Amino acid sequence: MIDFETKVFAKEKITLAGTEEYVVQGGKDKFSLLPKAFEGIRQIGVIGWKSQGPAQAMNLRDSLEGTDIKVKVGLRAGSPSMEKARAAGFTEENGTLGEMMDVIRESDLVILLIADAAQVELYKEIFAAMRPGTTLGLSHGFLIGYLNAIGEKLPDHINIIGVCPKGMGPSVRRLYEQGKEVNGAGINCSFAVVQDINGKATDQALGWAVGIGAPYVFATTLEMEYKSDIFGERGILLGAVHGMVESLYRWYTDHGMDEKTAFQHAVESITGPISKTISKKGIKAMYEAFSPEEKKIFESAYSTAYWPLFEVMLECYEEVESGNEIRSVIMAGKRLERFPFRTIDNTRMWKVGEEVRAERVEDKIPLDPFTAGIYAAGIVAQVDILREKGHAYSEIVNESIIEAVDSLNPYMHFKGVAYMVDNCSTTARLGARKWAPRFDYILWQNAYPEAEKGTVDPDLVEKFKTHPVHEALAVLSRYRPPVDIVVLEQ
Amino acid sequence: MIDFETKVFAKEKITLAGTEEYVVQGGKDKFSLLPKAFEGIRQIGVIGWKSQGPAQAMNLRDSLEGTDIKVKVGLRAGSPSMEKARAAGFTEENGTLGEMMDVIRESDLVILLIADAAQVELYKEIFAAMRPGTTLGLSHGFLIGYLNAIGEKLPDHINIIGVCPKGMGPSVRRLYEQGKEVNGAGINCSFAVVQDINGKATDQALGWAVGIGAPYVFATTLEMEYKSDIFGERGILLGAVHGMVESLYRWYTDHGMDEKTAFQHAVESITGPISKTISKKGIKAMYEAFSPEEKKIFESAYSTAYWPLFEVMLECYEEVESGNEIRSVIMAGKRLERFPFRTIDNTRMWKVGEEVRAERVEDKIPLDPFTAGIYAAGIVAQVDILREKGHAYSEIVNESIIEAVDSLNPYMHFKGVAYMVDNCSTTARLGARKWAPRFDYILWQNAYPEAEKGTVDPDLVEKFKTHPVHEALAVLSRYRPPVDIVVLEQ
Repeated sequence: MIDFETKVFAKEKITLAGTEEYVVQGGKDKFSLLPKAFEGIRQIGVIGWKSQGPAQAMNLRDSLEGTDIKVKVGLRAGSPSMEKARAAGFTEENGTLGEMMDVIRESDLVILLIADAAQVELYKEIFAAMRPGTTLGLSHGFLIGYLNAIGEKLPDHINIIGVCPKGMGPSVRRLYEQGKEVNGAGINCSFAVVQDINGKATDQALGWAVGIGAPYVFATTLEMEYKSDIFGERGILLGAVHGMVESLYRWYTDHGMDEKTAFQHAVESITGPISKTISKKGIKAMYEAFSPEEKKIFESAYSTAYWPLFEVMLECYEEVESGNEIRSVIMAGKRLERFPFRTIDNTRMWKVGEEVRAERVEDKIPLDPFTAGIYAAGIVAQVDILREKGHAYSEIVNESIIEAVDSLNPYMHFKGVAYMVDNCSTTARLGARKWAPRFDYILWQNAYPEAEKGTVDPDLVEKFKTHPVHEALAVLSRYRPPVDIVVLEQ
Repeated sequence: MIDFETKVFAKEKITLAGTEEYVVQGGKDKFSLLPKAFEGIRQIGVIGWKSQGPAQAMNLRDSLEGTDIKVKVGLRAGSPSMEKARAAGFTEENGTLGEMMDVIRESDLVILLIADAAQVELYKEIFAAMRPGTTLGLSHGFLIGYLNAIGEKLPDHINIIGVCPKGMGPSVRRLYEQGKEVNGAGINCSFAVVQDINGKATDQALGWAVGIGAPYVFATTLEMEYKSDIFGERGILLGAVHGMVESLYRWYTDHGMDEKTAFQHAVESITGPISKTISKKGIKAMYEAFSPEEKKIFESAYSTAYWPLFEVMLECYEEVESGNEIRSVIMAGKRLERFPFRTIDNTRMWKVGEEVRAERVEDKIPLDPFTAGIYAAGIVAQVDILREKGHAYSEIVNESIIEAVDSLNPYMHFKGVAYMVDNCSTTARLGARKWAPRFDYILWQNAYPEAEKGTVDPDLVEKFKTHPVHEALAVLSRYRPPVDIVVLEQ
């Protein structure tokens, strides 16, 4: 259990599936504590305008309104994002937009939200530009993972902290906006203190997390964070769910469903009623609401998919853990200059999806028990691997369940798979493209043919029913208000 | 150009697409030179009984018949392969079967054919067991790649050579047997001298290659070898062709073909007439035999598939080059103890394939121009990447064309995809499973939807028509007799 000292916020001890963790609750009623948490900070520089940049810059600016702490965006000179930042009210004229390195030099807290590969390329220059006693903030452990891998020391003249929202950037903004009506609506964050040279790092990190709208904040290390994060987005959050819906759609059409119905059962089921049920009542409640016949179908899908998914996920975790995946992302970043990202939703299935969405009647979407069984198997396999690898339950539940149903799936629900995947970080977009096909094939080759025979593994079903994650999810759900995200066109 | 000195064989200079290389021709008329090439060697130990082990042990034993050089198989004590080796005539009674480490200690040439991951685990023990002045033979550069990656030095008391057949083990045996009728029928090999402490290494390597039946032998380094080999099997040899046929079958059935016809057009086309035509006449001859309408279809498939396949292949090459893929294979090897290989041909498509094969009339198999265009794009993309990465044409053509059409595709033709993939090395089986889905998705998401519109890229088509690989393949084809492999039940 990671312990920490805060002079500003209220630390609480919670029990999750028999394990204890310390957390801090956020909410807009805590915004008044931000000046104290940010004592000595006159300017927060938010560097980059990709998935997290706009969200965090706008949320912090709104949360700090009325204080004398300025939020300033820093971008590469000539970056096409400059125009977008100006449209969001960050301008040179009002002193809240500048060249990246200038903003880094000026700021007391530098929140570095450029792409992971760019961080790897520029970190020496960035470290050198930071004034002694200031704080570097990361929203992801990737850079720390990379520096570990090459055996590079961290600079000792600055604080280094992490605040890692468990949701993609656009959702961090959307739920924050909704949180103006409902106190505490927002995206949960983990936080980590990598280096604290002046005793202020912890409260700065907590202030940052509360400032961007986290309903609650839990402690981790950036090593645990990057492993669970890079793994999780390749797993159930993006990669696995993408591979699942592709293969399910094919399975249903191959078995006689018309295209639209197949899309409803394969995709809409997950992004609609399955996500909503899990978000509000948990995974087990979804199962328990099924009829006896539906339960059988769920159990067979779950039993036959669990181990195949587990195997690919374990491979994925170990690729991340070993540093392979980080090296891959860096190499892929270089190739992106020659070959930009391709679209992933050009196929017939996603054209059908457009039609289905246009005609959608939200409460008529079927909750398919076969789809639910496959999806639940993916969640639980991911949970079990993270547990086997020593992650804490807050991280596990956020990285495997809450982020999926509250942040990501709603984006696929709104406009399809590319709208979910390609609104995430470059590292996530690369990983989803790399791993989705693996999940598709392992299900197609191993789970579905077995499920077709009606195979059920009673031990696996029993383990599902009595899994400690159900209780952990229930506890954590009490720490965020039940707000459905309303996804809007960007 | 790699040069070498041989005191036993005839070295020839050949010109391939404007580049020069030295090669040596094999054939059974050269077997009489083997005692001279193996001067001082009384025993050859063949260690392992997986894909290459049985083939090389039996071929060497046959080629050395009537000499006093003994071929002895070494296996782990209690290995289930012991029985198989005995059935092939390697027995304790006649002194040609023993415990692995004993055989390594006794032998003058140790041919190490255990799985790559096992080599990594045991190399220290093996190096220590070898007597000074003896020779270690590898059929693959994997171990050298691994030792490079961890910065480990090679032992200096032994010769280290490589002879790398450009075909899976069973085909090395089958074509050798057919070569008893047709001089020179066999699988080409590359060879490399990593370390030569007594001036005998080159002729030992050439003797080994000729002894296992190579029609011709070309020079490489084990660094170039493991990169092209690990890459090639993930590419067009196994991974890419697997992903292609899966996605083509789906594409054809989605567009109204019945299952059996779709299987013929997607799979049988490649494993039958496309492979035979390329083997005998080259890739361009296949194209030129098409009608004008078929040419248009080929050109569209080729144009729209080339860059997507190139991208995934380039990623794959760089994963291999960086050492990532080697680390992956080692980690996967450990996971195989917990989760053995799953079958890849449990799906409906491959059940249909069984029926199609049962009813097959060989000369009625259609040569589908769309399938041909996709397949040709895969070959040429792989050739272009290997060229970009500095490989010599012998290696490129063998690793991208000859091995596919003469060694591997015939196994898929005989009994389906698993019979091809799972008769290969563990490293290859892992790689095919990992990369096939990637090729499938990139074609499905990007090539086919574009090809459906009839898109043609005239520049790409022109580059295809004038590609230097056509001439290189033609030259190399003269170095092996035109023998179709006859695949038999094992």
